[in-house]
Amino acid sequence: MKKNILIIPGDGIGQEVTTWGKQVLETVAQAYGHDFSFDEAIMGHTAIEATGNPLPDETLEKAKASDAILFGAIGHAKYDNDPSAKVRPEQGLLKIRKELGLYANLRPILLFDELLDASSLKPEVLRGTDILFFRELTGDVYFGEKKRNEDNSFASDLMNYHRYEVERIARKAYDAARTRNKRLCSVDKANVLETSRLWREVVQEIAKEYSDVETEHMFIDNAAMQLVKNPKKFDVVLTANLFGDILTDEASQIAGSMGMLASASIGDGTGFFEPIHGSAHDIAGQNKANPLASILSAALMLDIAFGLQEEAKAVTNAVAETLKAGWRTGDIANAETAAHNILGTNEMGAKVLS
Amino acid sequence: MKKNILIIPGDGIGQEVTTWGKQVLETVAQAYGHDFSFDEAIMGHTAIEATGNPLPDETLEKAKASDAILFGAIGHAKYDNDPSAKVRPEQGLLKIRKELGLYANLRPILLFDELLDASSLKPEVLRGTDILFFRELTGDVYFGEKKRNEDNSFASDLMNYHRYEVERIARKAYDAARTRNKRLCSVDKANVLETSRLWREVVQEIAKEYSDVETEHMFIDNAAMQLVKNPKKFDVVLTANLFGDILTDEASQIAGSMGMLASASIGDGTGFFEPIHGSAHDIAGQNKANPLASILSAALMLDIAFGLQEEAKAVTNAVAETLKAGWRTGDIANAETAAHNILGTNEMGAKVLS
Ligand SMILES: CC(C)[C@H](C(=O)O)[C@@H](O)C(=O)O
Ligand SMILES: CC(C)[C@H](C(=O)O)[C@@H](O)C(=O)O
Repeated sequence: MKKNILIIPGDGIGQEVTTWGKQVLETVAQAYGHDFSFDEAIMGHTAIEATGNPLPDETLEKAKASDAILFGAIGHAKYDNDPSAKVRPEQGLLKIRKELGLYANLRPILLFDELLDASSLKPEVLRGTDILFFRELTGDVYFGEKKRNEDNSFASDLMNYHRYEVERIARKAYDAARTRNKRLCSVDKANVLETSRLWREVVQEIAKEYSDVETEHMFIDNAAMQLVKNPKKFDVVLTANLFGDILTDEASQIAGSMGMLASASIGDGTGFFEPIHGSAHDIAGQNKANPLASILSAALMLDIAFGLQEEAKAVTNAVAETLKAGWRTGDIANAETAAHNILGTNEMGAKVLS
Repeated sequence: MKKNILIIPGDGIGQEVTTWGKQVLETVAQAYGHDFSFDEAIMGHTAIEATGNPLPDETLEKAKASDAILFGAIGHAKYDNDPSAKVRPEQGLLKIRKELGLYANLRPILLFDELLDASSLKPEVLRGTDILFFRELTGDVYFGEKKRNEDNSFASDLMNYHRYEVERIARKAYDAARTRNKRLCSVDKANVLETSRLWREVVQEIAKEYSDVETEHMFIDNAAMQLVKNPKKFDVVLTANLFGDILTDEASQIAGSMGMLASASIGDGTGFFEPIHGSAHDIAGQNKANPLASILSAALMLDIAFGLQEEAKAVTNAVAETLKAGWRTGDIANAETAAHNILGTNEMGAKVLS
């Protein structure tokens, strides 16, 4: 199979971790006789520093022309603490999501048995958890009109959804639920928000086309609670952009660490694969970041973008073997982990490769 | 001390639990020689059934005239599953918050040592946690303009904040932080939302007036994660209406159950005290609900509305004693709780009273 893959390392630890996602893809290509070619592009803070633009045209062109994109992370504390900055790294990520029509963000909460103890949740609460989030990614209050009064006395963001936006992601989520445990939980705040009431109406309609899937509607506040209380009760979770952002970060604690979670953004064209963690500038360049989320993002690419299930499985298994052998990065180690088993980014990446 | 207290039981288990909050207030009045008089009013589904209006004028008048309000819960599944319903129970609650100017919602996460095992989180993660949430309660996307296209192809809600709305709650939160561990974490989504950027700007300004308090700014997705990972790191948490709704429900799992958490809403006039749990129609009328959140809401009333710290402490101690003696309602029982120690609403209420 011949594929062009674009690597966008982005900011902070994005640089370090994508190196390993890429090497895994190279190794898979060699082992299975595929022809993967790689190109690289800049985005975020890195791109602002180089060009003044968080998403340079060249990056967008390369992205559109590629078969799949492996992305690292975005953001920089400099902008976070300066709420008046007009140009911001995150604009690059939001724009590429919109431009590529990446309306569905899939975030599987994959629980490795070896990491049951790395979580702050009790092992008996976690065991058996397997959740697939479908987060809408190109609508909601993320993309609605933003306003600010000249005298800075008022600011607003328009939360909004079009019916077709809800329909298309709902169908994708229901299709996935059919191949899993046939349960779908749609999360909204329909007791307060008009946007959520439209969301719930549309999901109720689509649900009729999938009578073999059991549908539940849950308010976001309750969902944030249930996810900690009893994560096993969820199978497919379908939700809007903002609620999905919050719930999936929260759910990362089920998998033991943000450093373990990969995501796939799909839609109208090229697919986009990235860890759900951020740029973590505090540990960047120190060989401390967990490369597994990037490696698992590469596995999602093989599976979802290229339909290479066997290759994807091989990568996931390599990660599982490495964990089984006792190797950990700092974020997934616990009090019982022997110090010599705690690896840096590069050593962990190399273990998985071997 | 002479006080007029309005009891609004509301919907579902609200009816059962406020009975006990009220009895605790009566007992305190007797024991400490206060003169508390009680009136009752309707709101929510109960009020819609009786009058067609979720917040009848009579209830609002009584509310304004009272010295403090003890509220139960709101909501009914009937409306939740009918996104097109025009009249909804929650409108009553939102309207009374607005009309009484209850802009600050205080939600203390009180952890009783006896309940360390009732949580899905590990005891060592929980031990020592003590968080006080300040949730803004009369602004944000809750009260912004709502729109729906005639053909139901589009819906929107305006997320918005005025500078003065952020200022007044920030001051309240900082004042509280001063009397506690002098750490304040403000939660927003300033990397995406204009509303959050204004929020962060204003908090940064107010922070200068409180240089003895250590300020941290955190994105909501990260906060939802940190709250599970390491709840001990928080002291005072300040956040907007929607984010506060989500985070405090999530945080209920720190206290073992939603059935344990009380809240105080304060602002321009009469204070409003309520459990953070919902109407739970599935267990309503079955003598199963946990009355402790209502009892602890009564304690908050004594403390915050009436300045009766000693009386408040006596109530909290009575709850602690009851738990120490091994008594539990179903929601806070665990596998090791002896069956005969699991009580109904009324039996639990009576234990605390005695
Ligand atoms: C960096 C930020 C804009 C982004 C988001 O909120 O979508 C991130 O948190 C994510 O979840 O991918
Ligand atoms: C019932 C609902 C409108 C309410 C809210 O979202 O504010 C509730 O969840 C709460 O937290 O008090």
